[in-house]
Amino acid sequence: MNNFTYYNPTKIIFGKDTIKNIGKELRENGIRKVILVCGRQSIFSTGVYDRVSASLIGWHVDFVRFSGVQANPILSKVQEGIKLARQEEVDAVLAVGGGSVFDSAKVISAGVKYDGDVWDLFTGQAKIKNALPIFGVLTLSATGSEMNGNAVITKTDENKKWGIGSRHLYPRVSIIDPEFQASLSTRDTVNGAVDILSHVFELYFDGSKNVELMQEYSEAIIRTVMKNVRILITDSADYEARAQIAWAATLALNNSNGTGRRGGDWASHDIEHSVSAFYNVAHGAGLAVVTPAWMRYVYQEDLLTFARFAEKIFGIAGGTEEEKALLAIEHLLKFFIEIGAPVTLKELGVQYEDLEKMAENAVQQRPLGRLKKLQKEDVLAIYQLAWDTGSGELPV
Amino acid sequence: MNNFTYYNPTKIIFGKDTIKNIGKELRENGIRKVILVCGRQSIFSTGVYDRVSASLIGWHVDFVRFSGVQANPILSKVQEGIKLARQEEVDAVLAVGGGSVFDSAKVISAGVKYDGDVWDLFTGQAKIKNALPIFGVLTLSATGSEMNGNAVITKTDENKKWGIGSRHLYPRVSIIDPEFQASLSTRDTVNGAVDILSHVFELYFDGSKNVELMQEYSEAIIRTVMKNVRILITDSADYEARAQIAWAATLALNNSNGTGRRGGDWASHDIEHSVSAFYNVAHGAGLAVVTPAWMRYVYQEDLLTFARFAEKIFGIAGGTEEEKALLAIEHLLKFFIEIGAPVTLKELGVQYEDLEKMAENAVQQRPLGRLKKLQKEDVLAIYQLAWDTGSGELPV
Repeated sequence: MNNFTYYNPTKIIFGKDTIKNIGKELRENGIRKVILVCGRQSIFSTGVYDRVSASLIGWHVDFVRFSGVQANPILSKVQEGIKLARQEEVDAVLAVGGGSVFDSAKVISAGVKYDGDVWDLFTGQAKIKNALPIFGVLTLSATGSEMNGNAVITKTDENKKWGIGSRHLYPRVSIIDPEFQASLSTRDTVNGAVDILSHVFELYFDGSKNVELMQEYSEAIIRTVMKNVRILITDSADYEARAQIAWAATLALNNSNGTGRRGGDWASHDIEHSVSAFYNVAHGAGLAVVTPAWMRYVYQEDLLTFARFAEKIFGIAGGTEEEKALLAIEHLLKFFIEIGAPVTLKELGVQYEDLEKMAENAVQQRPLGRLKKLQKEDVLAIYQLAWDTGSGELPV
Repeated sequence: MNNFTYYNPTKIIFGKDTIKNIGKELRENGIRKVILVCGRQSIFSTGVYDRVSASLIGWHVDFVRFSGVQANPILSKVQEGIKLARQEEVDAVLAVGGGSVFDSAKVISAGVKYDGDVWDLFTGQAKIKNALPIFGVLTLSATGSEMNGNAVITKTDENKKWGIGSRHLYPRVSIIDPEFQASLSTRDTVNGAVDILSHVFELYFDGSKNVELMQEYSEAIIRTVMKNVRILITDSADYEARAQIAWAATLALNNSNGTGRRGGDWASHDIEHSVSAFYNVAHGAGLAVVTPAWMRYVYQEDLLTFARFAEKIFGIAGGTEEEKALLAIEHLLKFFIEIGAPVTLKELGVQYEDLEKMAENAVQQRPLGRLKKLQKEDVLAIYQLAWDTGSGELPV
């Protein structure tokens, strides 16, 4: 087991009818005025916005609304938010929405405290030394942003979908009410589930040794998500399934599952980011396509873990380690197909002739991967594997 | 799943050669002088004390030593510590030792900030409103005290071993270096492992519904601890086994495994506390005796979970739920015997004629149990079951 530091000060308030607490939490933290960051539509139709604003008004917390954040949130929108937060002299940033809204809120909170262009914090030209306090009400469980210090933003003019992380970006309080996820579309639910699974895979398959307990935790999350997303695609409003997935999403990426490891692989995420930087596909959809292809490309680097994955997740008992590994990847692909996730770049509308420039783009921020270091050629090969599934047996 | 709030701000620094960081952490928190709370012997012979004091000196943190805390820490000693901390005008309390030292440090930290008798905080006459900051270097993984806000203290003149909990009692920073647990005796290692298992059992068997993910986490901890304690009783210095058990101990009782549940059962702990209040046996030893007896007394209240336990932990596939449950309890008892833990009150030197007054003592702070509410008569019946194992097949 590797040495590690674990520190996660986010307070999570989880369960039914919990959104009403947001005003109280803000006041107890001395907050008098917030910029309320949100998306375009869903929080208004589900009643989340009404509940949040009623709580803010009830607790005498002023707020200025900053709506219109979209999936794959973009830099120019964040820059607008920073300007508004400064003009309005808010004390804190309140995210009300899913991972894109949380990520935007985090970058706004850091940007307000940084004098230069906020993109400097992504390129490494400047470090995050401070940020406004961040609070949140989560409406889509997937990214884990509600309990970590990470954010991903896209700079559209350069096709860069890049991430940052800082201890200053942990939300102080995040409220998760799974009941308000009942109205999510099947597509959003499925994409969210794939995102959660992918976070676990990035940690599980990073080549760490002597992390048995964390491998068991990972398998617990994988089984829980697979079981409960199957329930939700037939009954979107099943509270217990929503709750299991919501808490699994948070635990998958709140650092706890990363303890003692090498830091995660993260190549699949970087390879996907380059897809959605060019094509603006949903992150989860991109991951469903990229992850099995990445697995097929790298599984020989850690046959033991892939064989273990086969046993613990799919109950595959017989065969060589290699046979188990390959069968597990096929099972995963079939599972994605079963829940309606895309599994080929073709389905996402990607043009074959773009694969090369996507591969070039993917490796520009940093070298990819930990289990296997990936150069541009490797990424291209993975895109080619992902373009169709490469197996006549599978529907494509 | 029940609604819950999760908040745990303790920073954990885990791994080899990490003790040297304690001075830096204290300084970064603005601490200039601490009371260093410790036990009688082991930290001096293992070199832990030397490392801690070198780090404090190197970072210019003054300290006054308060040694002599013993297992089942007692109120009068804590009261001495409070007096010394006040006299010396320390800014913080530094625990260097195992759970007893951490618990004593916590109660000292709360006591310094409370004007009356610190025992008032246990009886409910007063609430903990403030405490000195708490820091720690852990040398025996078992109680989880390094990452929670709980403490247990014994008032010897009244045979009361009682607990308190407060958000003010979370350590700010706890350092866990498993390497320094290599020299623990087999008995301490085994008692620690039983304590960890018992914490998981208290949560696992509290009758909660729809907590599948947390049940899986619990099973991960149980399997990890059982596997690695077997390694340690033959090779006490196996670092990876020490590390797995150390992190499992923290995760077992840092609130995460309790999320969404009913709050845990805790009857076995209360029943054990009454044993060690009278006989000063090691907490883990008492739990090894009490837990299987408690299970035999209550298993019919939740046959499904006991049958699940049989399958997931011991691989018991056949039979009725009741048969599985009973077989699992027998397997657990045999496991305790295998690792050298006591399994009968007789072995602990308890007198049969004391069972009644122990039962009376056990129920005096509050009603016991959640899976099954236990009155004095129930506790007495459990003590009687625990007095010998009640099975001719098992060595007693």
